[in-house]
Amino acid sequence: MLDDTYFMRQALIEAQRAYDKNEVPVGAVVVANHRIIARAHNLVETLNDVTAHAEMQAITAAANVLGGKYLTDCTLFVTVEPCPMCAGALGWAQLSRVVYGASDEKRGFSKSAPSVLHPKTTVTSGVLAEECAKLMKAFFEKIR
Amino acid sequence: MLDDTYFMRQALIEAQRAYDKNEVPVGAVVVANHRIIARAHNLVETLNDVTAHAEMQAITAAANVLGGKYLTDCTLFVTVEPCPMCAGALGWAQLSRVVYGASDEKRGFSKSAPSVLHPKTTVTSGVLAEECAKLMKAFFEKIR
Repeated sequence: MLDDTYFMRQALIEAQRAYDKNEVPVGAVVVANHRIIARAHNLVETLNDVTAHAEMQAITAAANVLGGKYLTDCTLFVTVEPCPMCAGALGWAQLSRVVYGASDEKRGFSKSAPSVLHPKTTVTSGVLAEECAKLMKAFFEKIR
Repeated sequence: MLDDTYFMRQALIEAQRAYDKNEVPVGAVVVANHRIIARAHNLVETLNDVTAHAEMQAITAAANVLGGKYLTDCTLFVTVEPCPMCAGALGWAQLSRVVYGASDEKRGFSKSAPSVLHPKTTVTSGVLAEECAKLMKAFFEKIR
């Protein structure tokens, strides 16, 4: 069944790819018409680039697929709550919906930049939250 | 003299390049040791990519030049106040200083995401503000 859990599991597969590269394990997919049109994972260390978060790459890739910069009919699934940078990008891209797994109390946009998403974007949180958080926790325990 | 005005004028040259491409005219340069190590201008329309703001490209380019993702000894000069996305990226990159020209009452980070820069980053605003704003105004009058 192509529900939120299904697509979040796909984002988790991406997050695991980041984990395997010693990157902070965050993964994302962009869905349009029940189809994944872009997938990405965090590549900050690999690319030496703080802007290479999963969401940023997913937005750029999805716009490439669609041939336009707005993602108004798309949903982004991401394993961890977006940071203000990514939330700002999601705002510019005007996604119809953002679904995230684990909350990020410290770095999440909802604390420091709650109004940067587009007013029409709906947000769902907590999908597979435990699994998404578990992967993050395992990563930070590994690097300590 | 290599002062703030000098470097902002270089950012304005970049903004003019954006203007000439029918892009919202924002330009940026990154300076380390009184030397420009990266220059960029807004390419959102050209690249069909909402993440292609001047600051984002400047950060990525500067990190490439330095070979590391942190820009702790760098100053970014940008003609218009960064949006929350760009401010978030500047926060991750930990620049020592951000200098902007014109304020952006509507889209600037200081309204919707005032705390996203790194705590150690100092901010200067209003450098060549009038010229920076004038170019923006000319652009929006042109496209209307």
